[in-house]
Amino acid sequence: MKGKLIVFEGVEGCGKTTQIEQTRQWLEDLAISVAVTRQPGGTQLGQELRQILLHSQGYSIDPKAELLLYAADRAQHLAEVIKPELEKGTIVLCDRYTDSTIAYQGYGRGLDLAAIETLNRLATGGLEPYLTLWLDIDVEIGLNRVKVRGESDRLEQDTIDFHRLVQQGYQKLALHHPQIIHRVDASLSLEAVQLQIRSLLASHLNL
Amino acid sequence: MKGKLIVFEGVEGCGKTTQIEQTRQWLEDLAISVAVTRQPGGTQLGQELRQILLHSQGYSIDPKAELLLYAADRAQHLAEVIKPELEKGTIVLCDRYTDSTIAYQGYGRGLDLAAIETLNRLATGGLEPYLTLWLDIDVEIGLNRVKVRGESDRLEQDTIDFHRLVQQGYQKLALHHPQIIHRVDASLSLEAVQLQIRSLLASHLNL
Repeated sequence: MKGKLIVFEGVEGCGKTTQIEQTRQWLEDLAISVAVTRQPGGTQLGQELRQILLHSQGYSIDPKAELLLYAADRAQHLAEVIKPELEKGTIVLCDRYTDSTIAYQGYGRGLDLAAIETLNRLATGGLEPYLTLWLDIDVEIGLNRVKVRGESDRLEQDTIDFHRLVQQGYQKLALHHPQIIHRVDASLSLEAVQLQIRSLLASHLNL
Repeated sequence: MKGKLIVFEGVEGCGKTTQIEQTRQWLEDLAISVAVTRQPGGTQLGQELRQILLHSQGYSIDPKAELLLYAADRAQHLAEVIKPELEKGTIVLCDRYTDSTIAYQGYGRGLDLAAIETLNRLATGGLEPYLTLWLDIDVEIGLNRVKVRGESDRLEQDTIDFHRLVQQGYQKLALHHPQIIHRVDASLSLEAVQLQIRSLLASHLNL
């Protein structure tokens, strides 16, 4: 694997999409080969699963089934996109990865963390991010941003308490994996957030 | 759990659908509360997943992703259909269950059996069939039956060698779980197959 997997994580409205796009442009300006992708939804199968996971109507998805669908999306994404890109030497910027499942399904919905770990390992074959940028923002500020955008999906409609549990999950993950997960203060201006990201990438990628 | 889960297993063209329907009619004539369902596809989510699993076009599903999708279908089916029916005291006739995953994905595609066991346990919470009727038929006879019907899905288009491995999987499962899995000779006439099934059910359900 010559490339590197850089994961962006955080609660709804933390600004991942914008920051990933600006990071991509910056890396391309530096003539670095870069690919942007996301979980769920980074493949054609993933798109169909993302539609089911975030927009299913008329029935509720069992929490264990939800967990397994995220893992299926991930396995397909690894095989079809991430591994081939890493083998080509690409810097892969991925919107959410295994930590999202731990934070949302584990800490948020209270599903068994050991089962989640097992599924994550199965889906990824143990492939960990080279670096995870955790865009940390207050849950209410994030959800307000989403509301202002006028978007909403099934996860964003969950209660504020659920999102607080997710936030605590990210805090614990960052505490336990300080070598991989780096906190970015996402409450600042777009420019200030992007500056923190560039600084972290510059030092970890030796740019 | 007052009801009982009766699973029908076997390779393509073994006659499950017809036999399940005749068994349902027979049990209803005996005034027994019965429900017919299937994996994948026994729920609305399951229908969407079944469509993806058996009829997806334009991309190939990664073997691990496939495994996880079957498990997701199963978890939803357990929570939404099987457990509630069993709690009502229903005899549930289910077209395929965990042994299909072991036979097709494990023995057929060569995926790690320990991982499959883990996923099956996760999806079912350890709920085993009360009785599994394995409709055993020669692989080529079964596939010819399917061809005559003019149907085909992704699994049926696999090579004959794949289906032989699946068949061997069922043989091993039956050998290792003689208390649950009972072989039915499915090469005989419809009537003779149904007679074997009724005889097995009559003795195991004390009818």
